[in-house]
Amino acid sequence: MADLRDIGISAAFNLLTALVFLIAFAVLRLQPINDRVYFPKWYLKGIRATPSRSKGVSKIVNLNLRTYLRFLNWMPEALRMPEPELIEHAGLDSVAYIRIYLLGLKIFVPIAVLAFSVLIPVNWTGRMLEGAHDLTFSNIDKLSISNIPRGSNRFWAHIGVAYIATFWTCYMLYKEYKIIMTMRLEFIASSDRRPDQFTVLLRNVPPDPDESVSEHVEHFFYVNHPDHYLLHQVVYNANKLAKLVDKKQSLKNWLIYYQNQYERNPSKKPTIKTGFCGLWGTREDAIDYYAKEIEKLSEQEAAERERVLSDPEAILPAAFVSFKSRWGAAVCAQTQQSRNPTLWLTEWASEPSDVYWDNLAIPYVEHNIRKLLMALGLFFLIFFYTVPITFVQSLANLNGIEKVFPFLKHLIEQDTVKSFIQGYLPGIILKIFLLLIPMVIMIMSKIEGYTSFSSLERVSAKKYHLFILINVFLVSIIAGTALGQLKTFLDQSPSEIPKTFGVSMPMKATFFITYIMVDGWAGVAAEVLRLVPLVIFHLKNTFLVKTEKDREQAMDPGFLDFAVYEPRIQLYFLLGLVYCAVTPILLPFIILFFAFAYLVFRHQIINVYDRKYESSAAFWPDVHRRIIIGLVISQLLLLGLLSTKGIKMSTPLLIVLPVLTIWFYRVCQGRFESAFTRFPLQEAMMKDTLERATDPMLNLRSYLHDAYLHPIFKGGEFYIVPPRDEEEGAPLVPTKRSQRSSKVTSLASSEASV
Amino acid sequence: MADLRDIGISAAFNLLTALVFLIAFAVLRLQPINDRVYFPKWYLKGIRATPSRSKGVSKIVNLNLRTYLRFLNWMPEALRMPEPELIEHAGLDSVAYIRIYLLGLKIFVPIAVLAFSVLIPVNWTGRMLEGAHDLTFSNIDKLSISNIPRGSNRFWAHIGVAYIATFWTCYMLYKEYKIIMTMRLEFIASSDRRPDQFTVLLRNVPPDPDESVSEHVEHFFYVNHPDHYLLHQVVYNANKLAKLVDKKQSLKNWLIYYQNQYERNPSKKPTIKTGFCGLWGTREDAIDYYAKEIEKLSEQEAAERERVLSDPEAILPAAFVSFKSRWGAAVCAQTQQSRNPTLWLTEWASEPSDVYWDNLAIPYVEHNIRKLLMALGLFFLIFFYTVPITFVQSLANLNGIEKVFPFLKHLIEQDTVKSFIQGYLPGIILKIFLLLIPMVIMIMSKIEGYTSFSSLERVSAKKYHLFILINVFLVSIIAGTALGQLKTFLDQSPSEIPKTFGVSMPMKATFFITYIMVDGWAGVAAEVLRLVPLVIFHLKNTFLVKTEKDREQAMDPGFLDFAVYEPRIQLYFLLGLVYCAVTPILLPFIILFFAFAYLVFRHQIINVYDRKYESSAAFWPDVHRRIIIGLVISQLLLLGLLSTKGIKMSTPLLIVLPVLTIWFYRVCQGRFESAFTRFPLQEAMMKDTLERATDPMLNLRSYLHDAYLHPIFKGGEFYIVPPRDEEEGAPLVPTKRSQRSSKVTSLASSEASV
Repeated sequence: MADLRDIGISAAFNLLTALVFLIAFAVLRLQPINDRVYFPKWYLKGIRATPSRSKGVSKIVNLNLRTYLRFLNWMPEALRMPEPELIEHAGLDSVAYIRIYLLGLKIFVPIAVLAFSVLIPVNWTGRMLEGAHDLTFSNIDKLSISNIPRGSNRFWAHIGVAYIATFWTCYMLYKEYKIIMTMRLEFIASSDRRPDQFTVLLRNVPPDPDESVSEHVEHFFYVNHPDHYLLHQVVYNANKLAKLVDKKQSLKNWLIYYQNQYERNPSKKPTIKTGFCGLWGTREDAIDYYAKEIEKLSEQEAAERERVLSDPEAILPAAFVSFKSRWGAAVCAQTQQSRNPTLWLTEWASEPSDVYWDNLAIPYVEHNIRKLLMALGLFFLIFFYTVPITFVQSLANLNGIEKVFPFLKHLIEQDTVKSFIQGYLPGIILKIFLLLIPMVIMIMSKIEGYTSFSSLERVSAKKYHLFILINVFLVSIIAGTALGQLKTFLDQSPSEIPKTFGVSMPMKATFFITYIMVDGWAGVAAEVLRLVPLVIFHLKNTFLVKTEKDREQAMDPGFLDFAVYEPRIQLYFLLGLVYCAVTPILLPFIILFFAFAYLVFRHQIINVYDRKYESSAAFWPDVHRRIIIGLVISQLLLLGLLSTKGIKMSTPLLIVLPVLTIWFYRVCQGRFESAFTRFPLQEAMMKDTLERATDPMLNLRSYLHDAYLHPIFKGGEFYIVPPRDEEEGAPLVPTKRSQRSSKVTSLASSEASV
Repeated sequence: MADLRDIGISAAFNLLTALVFLIAFAVLRLQPINDRVYFPKWYLKGIRATPSRSKGVSKIVNLNLRTYLRFLNWMPEALRMPEPELIEHAGLDSVAYIRIYLLGLKIFVPIAVLAFSVLIPVNWTGRMLEGAHDLTFSNIDKLSISNIPRGSNRFWAHIGVAYIATFWTCYMLYKEYKIIMTMRLEFIASSDRRPDQFTVLLRNVPPDPDESVSEHVEHFFYVNHPDHYLLHQVVYNANKLAKLVDKKQSLKNWLIYYQNQYERNPSKKPTIKTGFCGLWGTREDAIDYYAKEIEKLSEQEAAERERVLSDPEAILPAAFVSFKSRWGAAVCAQTQQSRNPTLWLTEWASEPSDVYWDNLAIPYVEHNIRKLLMALGLFFLIFFYTVPITFVQSLANLNGIEKVFPFLKHLIEQDTVKSFIQGYLPGIILKIFLLLIPMVIMIMSKIEGYTSFSSLERVSAKKYHLFILINVFLVSIIAGTALGQLKTFLDQSPSEIPKTFGVSMPMKATFFITYIMVDGWAGVAAEVLRLVPLVIFHLKNTFLVKTEKDREQAMDPGFLDFAVYEPRIQLYFLLGLVYCAVTPILLPFIILFFAFAYLVFRHQIINVYDRKYESSAAFWPDVHRRIIIGLVISQLLLLGLLSTKGIKMSTPLLIVLPVLTIWFYRVCQGRFESAFTRFPLQEAMMKDTLERATDPMLNLRSYLHDAYLHPIFKGGEFYIVPPRDEEEGAPLVPTKRSQRSSKVTSLASSEASV
């Protein structure tokens, strides 16, 4: 068991790591050459451009020494932007996301104050472990509930803290849910006209022998929504075309690479071997070869584009149906259209950039089968993934390393190294393995068949949370594999399980403290440094970039990866809630994490991350639910722990808490959740009326007619992600892009605007 | 353990009981004096009237002996009416209800054939129990799975049957769900114009300082449904008034009773004591006393009626909002109206006779608190109710009775009596206790605050099903209290629980067979006899009836008590599914029950039961879900049983079944359930269009303006249940009743029709 000293060394080491990261960040961000890595958001907004006035070295390196003195200035700067401006700047999703950290602070700071003023003295003077010189106890344990003798009345203090923590957490959750709901409704109400406000995604259009999909949709809506239907856009199956475009882009990158090489060194024409991986085959001129390949691909692409637009088979039984008013769209999205509830499915259209086009064609029954299969897949992922983790962890203790590498014995028995291995290594191993999981989970969610990026992220976050809960939290509490856990769950009685976990919980506090430091502190500091995008940007910059436009493309602003980050935050909530009544010494580490992460992510959403889409904080019900799950788990574990401590009445008193918490969850669900899934008619009518008054001449048809075209048909030659600001102006006059694509879309829209 | 002979005696006894009931029924129903007890439905329809041509004795007793010869004729007659006619005659609720019995036959007859041709030979030749002369085994057990030795390959037959039974049950369930859904949609589509098609129940109208509820509602809907809103009717808090009317009716009954007494015996004026319960106080003339009291009450009633109609405090924050088209109503019922999802709640209005007026005023949060409290109440009802049941059951075995009543020893040790006690008594004791539960549960549901009789019945059925599942099924399998069960569940591991139940399950087959005979066979036969309504009708007829109208009121047709009957049927489904692979000998008893019950209830809904309301089979998703629950329980128990029998691979093979079943349930839910909760716009539009074409001059306002008036304001002086046929004609011309009440409603409708 780690001692206070080990924790101290580990903390120092992690703080040092974090500090090194921060200093590196502070230095690197001041270099003009890195400007596009650390401030890409401003470039995307068009506010910032590559500095061109200064010349020579100063274009690359910042020589103004005074700016280095203020290297921590970004912290207050990150906090300066007020919330309404931040919402406008980065969107509500980002703001709601950083409010999760803020919520962590709001919940845990008062609880920590309470726990430190009540529980630490109570525990410290418990004197249970005074005489024990057992190695399994340390100073940390003396500050924890383990230090209280069996049957002591001091446990009432812990029960009291659990009660107060529960009520405080619920109160803060309720308040926050209300705030986010209000923010969401105001954001939707105040946002400008957007295509998705008028549009509904229609799926599972039944086949009709006499009519095309487009005609069928049109007739159906003319009959059933006669006063409100405006137009619709069919969905093309352009997955193959998108692949061709992607391939072409990659070939183009190589072409540019060789052209640049040739320019720099005109004496030697670059050549390549055309066989497998460039390892053999005839040697050809690289520039000629790629130019030829690109031309070939362009022809294929044009043919495929033609085929998609003309072949009725390429039209999916889905459509985006637009209405004359928000009211009409709100009505259509919330109601059932036909007898058979698996046909003519309507739901709110996501905004155009949020649509995940590949999945629009999946029929109802197939979607169900995919869900079943992916549920089984998740089961296996969770319960059989842990074999490698536990194997590596079992190696990574002192004895294990000494056994495998006996020659290291001398080194690792030094105190500092020992502390390092004990405190740092298990956490970092876990971390590395965990990095791979989110990708697997996202692929699984895509296979399941959700139709928007935002729902894909929400569903992935749900799966990942389950994964973390079982494979990080539970597995760490009782050493063993998740499969072993499952066996425990099946073989032990339900009243035994909280006991088993509850009893070993206090002993794992030190492990989680180091985990928080590695994953939380150092991890967040690494986030701000953006090492990977930095390297990639400079590689691209060196080899591919010729024009300013290329540089624009080389820039990778990244985005808030909700599916990965949010479940990880939930682990901190869970740890805080579980340990607040047991080992309160853990709380400051969590609070420090929340504060630091809030600062860093606020900085990142201001300066770095791009918005992939805007779901108006649609994820909040999930966040709320997962914190409640953490709260209930913490209550059950405390119940299990205290039931072994020989105090009367603790179980009935503590069983009240989860019952009340679950009831609280249901009340919140009824009170708030529908604001995140439905669109009240009152709001829709209000905005419609306002618009009719302010803009009576609006031509909605021309505004909407190509809003939901597959992005492949939008850009000229490249597969360009539509810029984010599209919804901010009201492009009533066709923009340059839509003019360019109007030829392509004429076929699609001519059907719709009959 | 009961032997085949015990079962035989018990079966004979129960069949005899059933036969006695049936003969009694056959004789009694032919007597003209009982005509109103056994054919009330036809009187209510106005097709049958009291026979008046025949005089004297033949008015009371049927002397035509030939009719007695055909005393079982009602059975084919009950089957003769074709289903569409039956739907028109008795409503879809009743037809869907008797289809549950039919579904039972469809599921279990093929399964029984399979089980008898495969499992009975396999079990009988298992020879496990051949040598065993242990008392705990009987011939029944030799036909069951207990007769197969450990590790035998014969168990594969049982696993196979379990698989086939699962797939067959799911297939039948799917087909039936589809049929019922189609019937429901056709019923709704073909039904004539009804007020509830145009109307939405609005609850939780927020208070407004400047406007009355009525004005507030009107303004809100004029703004947010401008093209569709027609009118609304406010809801009065008339609970006190209803109580006064009830009390007056009871006094009137007494007045008539004494008047009749006086008429028959004019020499003696009836007198009563006016004090508590008529036990003391001054003696007065009874007729004068009641006439006076009624007059007093009439004044109070008039004053209260005045107060309700004029006091703004008496108007509840709820309203029935009617629309110009079914489309408008369907839209409003399915959408969210305001930002705050707990205000302006809209849902389909139940038809006027289905509205449970007392609960319309409960606000959102209070409704939640009531739900929490009633959930706790249900928990205590389920787990602490069993104390009396088990106490009585523990007395009712041979040893118990001999101990308590030693003098009976001689009697009960006779073979027949012994068999009777062992086979019959435990079942009947259970039955008596169970009769009290549904009333308690219905009261609990009313407290919870549901607003229609149909939802009250559905919710009560859910609670009652849980009760039966735990307190009849599980408790009977392992003798002990439900509280003991709960302890078992908490203390045993989840993998042990199916084992514990699975192992003792085959031994309880005989108990359940007797239960089926008592509750099923004799119980259903008692249902057709209608002993209680028969007695009450004759009592009323003797003491209260003077005019034909009184006789109309004395008639109690009763109704299909879904909340009580349906959960009981579920027990038979559960038993059939659980025992089909274990003790198939139980299946014929269940099949006989389903067939007999189908016959009897078909007869009852044709001739007897009145419709309280019509929910268009809205309960079917519940029925479907509960059969699925039974199926999953049966699969888990078989899994538990076989896991103790030492055959490899049985657990993984059998765990597939519940997973698939639950998945099947979710698919069905997605495919069918919304047809029971929502109203597709396509259907609404179709009916609207049709109506506009066939009846362009329809004055919907006058049709709807008092449809949703509290029934207390509808009848003249009495609290008359509105007649059922109201919806069948289209009373465009104000009926007599609405003319009478128009004066009363003028206040309400004047606000609405501004």
